[in-house]
Amino acid sequence: MATGNRIVTFEKPMEMKVNTFKFPELITPQGKKAPHGAILKIVTTNICGSDLHIYRGSFEVPKGMTMGHEMTGEVIEVGSDVEYIKVGDIVSVPFNVGCGRCYNCKHMRSDVCEHTNPEVDCGAYGFNLGGWTGGQGDYLFVPYADFNLLAFPDKDAAMAKIRDLTLLSDVLPTAFHGFAAPDWPAQPAYIVGENVLIFGAGPVGRAGAACAKLLGAGAIIVADFIQERLDLLKPHGVETINLSDGIPIEDHLERITGKREADRVIDYVGLDCRGFGAESDQIVENAVTNALLKYVRFGGMTSTVGVYCPNPISKNRDNKKGSMEVDWASGWIKSPRMSAGQSPTANYNHALMRAILNDRMPYLTPMMNTKIIKLEDAPAAYKEFDDGSAFKYVIDPHGSVAA
Amino acid sequence: MATGNRIVTFEKPMEMKVNTFKFPELITPQGKKAPHGAILKIVTTNICGSDLHIYRGSFEVPKGMTMGHEMTGEVIEVGSDVEYIKVGDIVSVPFNVGCGRCYNCKHMRSDVCEHTNPEVDCGAYGFNLGGWTGGQGDYLFVPYADFNLLAFPDKDAAMAKIRDLTLLSDVLPTAFHGFAAPDWPAQPAYIVGENVLIFGAGPVGRAGAACAKLLGAGAIIVADFIQERLDLLKPHGVETINLSDGIPIEDHLERITGKREADRVIDYVGLDCRGFGAESDQIVENAVTNALLKYVRFGGMTSTVGVYCPNPISKNRDNKKGSMEVDWASGWIKSPRMSAGQSPTANYNHALMRAILNDRMPYLTPMMNTKIIKLEDAPAAYKEFDDGSAFKYVIDPHGSVAA
Amino acid sequence: MATGNRIVTFEKPMEMKVNTFKFPELITPQGKKAPHGAILKIVTTNICGSDLHIYRGSFEVPKGMTMGHEMTGEVIEVGSDVEYIKVGDIVSVPFNVGCGRCYNCKHMRSDVCEHTNPEVDCGAYGFNLGGWTGGQGDYLFVPYADFNLLAFPDKDAAMAKIRDLTLLSDVLPTAFHGFAAPDWPAQPAYIVGENVLIFGAGPVGRAGAACAKLLGAGAIIVADFIQERLDLLKPHGVETINLSDGIPIEDHLERITGKREADRVIDYVGLDCRGFGAESDQIVENAVTNALLKYVRFGGMTSTVGVYCPNPISKNRDNKKGSMEVDWASGWIKSPRMSAGQSPTANYNHALMRAILNDRMPYLTPMMNTKIIKLEDAPAAYKEFDDGSAFKYVIDPHGSVAA
Amino acid sequence: MATGNRIVTFEKPMEMKVNTFKFPELITPQGKKAPHGAILKIVTTNICGSDLHIYRGSFEVPKGMTMGHEMTGEVIEVGSDVEYIKVGDIVSVPFNVGCGRCYNCKHMRSDVCEHTNPEVDCGAYGFNLGGWTGGQGDYLFVPYADFNLLAFPDKDAAMAKIRDLTLLSDVLPTAFHGFAAPDWPAQPAYIVGENVLIFGAGPVGRAGAACAKLLGAGAIIVADFIQERLDLLKPHGVETINLSDGIPIEDHLERITGKREADRVIDYVGLDCRGFGAESDQIVENAVTNALLKYVRFGGMTSTVGVYCPNPISKNRDNKKGSMEVDWASGWIKSPRMSAGQSPTANYNHALMRAILNDRMPYLTPMMNTKIIKLEDAPAAYKEFDDGSAFKYVIDPHGSVAA
Repeated sequence: MATGNRIVTFEKPMEMKVNTFKFPELITPQGKKAPHGAILKIVTTNICGSDLHIYRGSFEVPKGMTMGHEMTGEVIEVGSDVEYIKVGDIVSVPFNVGCGRCYNCKHMRSDVCEHTNPEVDCGAYGFNLGGWTGGQGDYLFVPYADFNLLAFPDKDAAMAKIRDLTLLSDVLPTAFHGFAAPDWPAQPAYIVGENVLIFGAGPVGRAGAACAKLLGAGAIIVADFIQERLDLLKPHGVETINLSDGIPIEDHLERITGKREADRVIDYVGLDCRGFGAESDQIVENAVTNALLKYVRFGGMTSTVGVYCPNPISKNRDNKKGSMEVDWASGWIKSPRMSAGQSPTANYNHALMRAILNDRMPYLTPMMNTKIIKLEDAPAAYKEFDDGSAFKYVIDPHGSVAA
Repeated sequence: MATGNRIVTFEKPMEMKVNTFKFPELITPQGKKAPHGAILKIVTTNICGSDLHIYRGSFEVPKGMTMGHEMTGEVIEVGSDVEYIKVGDIVSVPFNVGCGRCYNCKHMRSDVCEHTNPEVDCGAYGFNLGGWTGGQGDYLFVPYADFNLLAFPDKDAAMAKIRDLTLLSDVLPTAFHGFAAPDWPAQPAYIVGENVLIFGAGPVGRAGAACAKLLGAGAIIVADFIQERLDLLKPHGVETINLSDGIPIEDHLERITGKREADRVIDYVGLDCRGFGAESDQIVENAVTNALLKYVRFGGMTSTVGVYCPNPISKNRDNKKGSMEVDWASGWIKSPRMSAGQSPTANYNHALMRAILNDRMPYLTPMMNTKIIKLEDAPAAYKEFDDGSAFKYVIDPHGSVAA
Repeated sequence: MATGNRIVTFEKPMEMKVNTFKFPELITPQGKKAPHGAILKIVTTNICGSDLHIYRGSFEVPKGMTMGHEMTGEVIEVGSDVEYIKVGDIVSVPFNVGCGRCYNCKHMRSDVCEHTNPEVDCGAYGFNLGGWTGGQGDYLFVPYADFNLLAFPDKDAAMAKIRDLTLLSDVLPTAFHGFAAPDWPAQPAYIVGENVLIFGAGPVGRAGAACAKLLGAGAIIVADFIQERLDLLKPHGVETINLSDGIPIEDHLERITGKREADRVIDYVGLDCRGFGAESDQIVENAVTNALLKYVRFGGMTSTVGVYCPNPISKNRDNKKGSMEVDWASGWIKSPRMSAGQSPTANYNHALMRAILNDRMPYLTPMMNTKIIKLEDAPAAYKEFDDGSAFKYVIDPHGSVAA
Repeated sequence: MATGNRIVTFEKPMEMKVNTFKFPELITPQGKKAPHGAILKIVTTNICGSDLHIYRGSFEVPKGMTMGHEMTGEVIEVGSDVEYIKVGDIVSVPFNVGCGRCYNCKHMRSDVCEHTNPEVDCGAYGFNLGGWTGGQGDYLFVPYADFNLLAFPDKDAAMAKIRDLTLLSDVLPTAFHGFAAPDWPAQPAYIVGENVLIFGAGPVGRAGAACAKLLGAGAIIVADFIQERLDLLKPHGVETINLSDGIPIEDHLERITGKREADRVIDYVGLDCRGFGAESDQIVENAVTNALLKYVRFGGMTSTVGVYCPNPISKNRDNKKGSMEVDWASGWIKSPRMSAGQSPTANYNHALMRAILNDRMPYLTPMMNTKIIKLEDAPAAYKEFDDGSAFKYVIDPHGSVAA
């Protein structure tokens, strides 16, 4: 029986470390007993692009904070009020912590749970959003286990597809959320045949391209500066734009689709984004946000999936406060519909699990380019990821994943 | 310049014929000038499963009525108030005749146009629904051309994919309509990961399986008696049930999905459907309708896409009037959401065209198993189709389609 | 401290009685501990139209079954895993029993909860749907209290409007469900300006007229045989049809709206409905169901809110099994959208509570015509209600309601 | 027979004038014949808040441009391809010019018509958006009459309610659009019981409060600096905030609703908005936009109905270009859903007409406080309106409206 729990922690900008903590208990961050909770032995736990904002210092967190919010695990203990999740289940953990009991959770908005963070209506593991311990570690406490956990129907089938199923905790539903109908949290909008322009070919942008394909989009176009990431997409019916090639984006759009605007434009980048073309070597905080409004067609939709927050390391006074200059007039005349913010993961993970288990996304593994690593190698992987690696890093703390 | 117009006509049950009519003019069935109309030279014109109801006599029409409502053509003449459709355009004709000017058309319900049929709010070519001449012929008059016609963006690209694009006039959008959100005519419901049970492996049922795949469904299960039709689907990730095998449908469902009910159940059969199992050799008018309510899960959805109408040749007194015994109590307790009726084709054809032109449905051609025939062979094709052929018959009156 | 619990019970058709049971515990019908549950002291508990189906014997239940599913109460005890509901809260109890942990509950379909009834996916108090004790009594056990209960924000304000708030447990949300977008359980469809035809002027039909008014409907038309019930509606901008007047319904519609069909037609009657006109003195099980399809416009919507189930006392062999003859062909050609089944009460009660507390429904009390009665008078009230009384009966077991 | 046509024209900032033009013909601004068009004799034509942006010079238009986009008229001539609109009809003109033939118009997005403005996908009367002649005059040419015009069913009934019906051309549907489901142009979102915070008590803000009431909102709260405008709302169940009172908005919200944020926040102001509190005497271009994000609850909705455009008279360099600093990070964490832009008027006007004709908005006339004026008095009315008058000015060029 394990007594310790190794977890990746944030030490200072550009430095992560693995520390050992005590084994988790069924206790909330506020010290309250949690008969609704469960303890998981982690099977896989991914490094997320939003972890990089913390790594760089642009999303501020306290020193020593535990990291990780993309977990898949095996249930090893359940509280006295857990009825349907069983010890032995292999489960995906939505990165949002929901209570299942507030107005928002009951209305399919677990992304803005009213109870799991005393400060704002939004709780998550591995951020300073409610104090929930991060899951890039050996074990994890999950509250409201019946509400939060998605159990895979068959253990062997799950382990056979674990490289895809590990994506259900965040990156795949978050990517999918880029296609959400703004007003209908349970459902993606109608994408069949639509031309989709995606900014960002990191893991969540690549997962976005995969979701666009799953949903029957028309032209799927991904823009980034890193050719190696773009190259992963090309064999799968995805068009690419290398933003450093000096060709205006609208010319690329016209070449590919015959039109200079797209039906839907999605920001999978967030803060720390770089300007396009000549400016590509420096951060231009509002570059992608204004690109959404510039390249969306009249009557189209935009989604801001990438994280925005006050950025303490920005050189721009407004950005430090979380504010930026937005070309609102251009947006207004187009009558766009817009969404922003975190994915209500629990709305999407069941559907995406079944799509995976029914072999509807055979392109997912090659597009994501998963790399399985040991827990002790996580700090180095943060650096490689930040340097522009084309891998999706998946930590396997207990050596559970077959080679 | 052509002066005649050969068109397939209904002579009597089980007998179709090709007759020659005069060349069409820009005149409505009520004899009114139609400056909004256009004349098409037909490129392809398909035989539809609903044409078989007429052929059999179960959908009653007058002797000599012109047949055909699945047309693709080249525009050869436009009226003085046609602004955007041009001579030379290759266009798909939605089988519904909409005016684009009534409340229903303006609200994306061209399936129930208020003006194009003086008798009921529903107009169509090649039925006795407004008197519009059928299009299984050489030429066709189409009213409200700017509103009704879908122009393909590139003529060569269109002819290269004509076997798929010919499906846009009816069978593919009609199949897609089986997935419509009942309350949102513009959009299909959220199907990602859902288990879909389809009754009917004729062309529209096979197109339904293709749409389910395009929309990211989970298990896609098609039930029919004709093994040859089912065999077309198997290589493309579709599960099949041969209804004559004596195994209860719920056992098939459990084997395939682990559950004895499906999330969505669709009737692509309509009247003339046969009972299941032991009863499979005779018409049991309500067999599929009650199967929808029996096999849908609690909280699921059903769609009745197959045609129902008063059936003059039925032996059942109620069916003759269009009425049948429905297991309404079983339905009620499940809180199902249901839709029925014709597809608002114009809502879906643009999206599906772009999905086809962007290569999102490579499985469409093999699943549909299109057979190109000459106009004079149409009467024989009706018989073969009614006998259970696994082809989708596409008439090519002018020899436009490359072999 | 109370030790007994008086509850209305079904003895046999046409006979209800008040029996005394032991005080409730935090234990499920299956004998399992329920730390998630709460005990309520009942403040008000209404008699529902669906209770009359049981009373008449057309919805079969065992002798001695406890009755009641429309409860408002004060929380007097909570289990160890109840976090947000507090002792002293005045709460409304949705008649559906949801677990808040299954797929359906997490997707806003607590009307088809998968866990609270071992037989079918649907649990409720005071029916044989999961064995939950009925609430026409002194006290009630409610499971999953944080998920199920709606707490009123202020106790005094709640008691001041208790005649309206008591309707939130069932009759008002159920009526509201008649306006649901079939595909969007969280939301009513767009009713502004629509002509609504309602069958039934009993409490739920009258509540439906109130909801239509709240939602900005155009003409609101209620049809019934009982003039006294219709008269309650007239002063509030509602049109009425007395079905026994011999005038065809379509003529009434034309007089009121200028059209012979309505945009939305709702069945608030269910089984035991009587035929119209000459047939008005006898049960014609499918009378209202076929009227929905007959009087809805092309492209309109129908809702079946009234209960349908196998009816053991029917003289019709098909109705005994829960089946009936439906004019499906008439429905099909109109492309209707249809919904049926129970209201997901928890989706609507919060919104309706706020509408009431903000004085948006001043017409609710006079239209409902509430009568407060003692618990011992409940059996007599069943008879009066079944005889066609125009009251909504509300039982006040502890004398909590000010005169 | 009239030969001239008096119309209000823009001369220079702060100066409007009435000039006489020649009688309109069935000819588009590009000089093309329009057999689809109609000529109206204007019955009523309102001055809109967006006309004030032109008046002030913050929305730049050429000298001499004809003004007016809120017209109701009598049809006096129709083109040869107009089938359903008849001479003599009293009609409401949606301010958007739609063609009814492009993709957007066919998908209920006539606010972004692709054909009626050669420069951008958005045409309107009385702006430089396609060159369509303004309607603050005697007569008006309307293209695509069957598609665009809403005919009132009865002439006498229409004239009896003309003060309300005149609002259907813009201000009432535009206000209603503030409640649109971002993803569903045909429908308002679910507002029942929601707390709505409205910025602006000018005519469109007051119409927004009326729509919130029609839709069954919970608390309806309107904020403005002009007490006289706010006072019009108080008798009708609307709460008000005078922004100059020095009390933080969040304190007002808490007093009224018990919460410091609202469910939906709507900007009915647009550019030229003033800062709140101490800054209230000067333009702060982003004041309302950031207030939307500040006062919306987590998971709530915002709507930007007020006009934003590059503002040539702004002192702020960014605003001159149409850009402004937005607190995007605050928005992001709340997962808001946002919409912006013009109302697709044709989606809403039919429903609102029926609500008015069925007496569902008796509060509309007193809340709007309509003042009927002569055409020659329009220039003076612009000044009064800009000075903060509490009237909605309605021009009656032919003396059609009974006193």
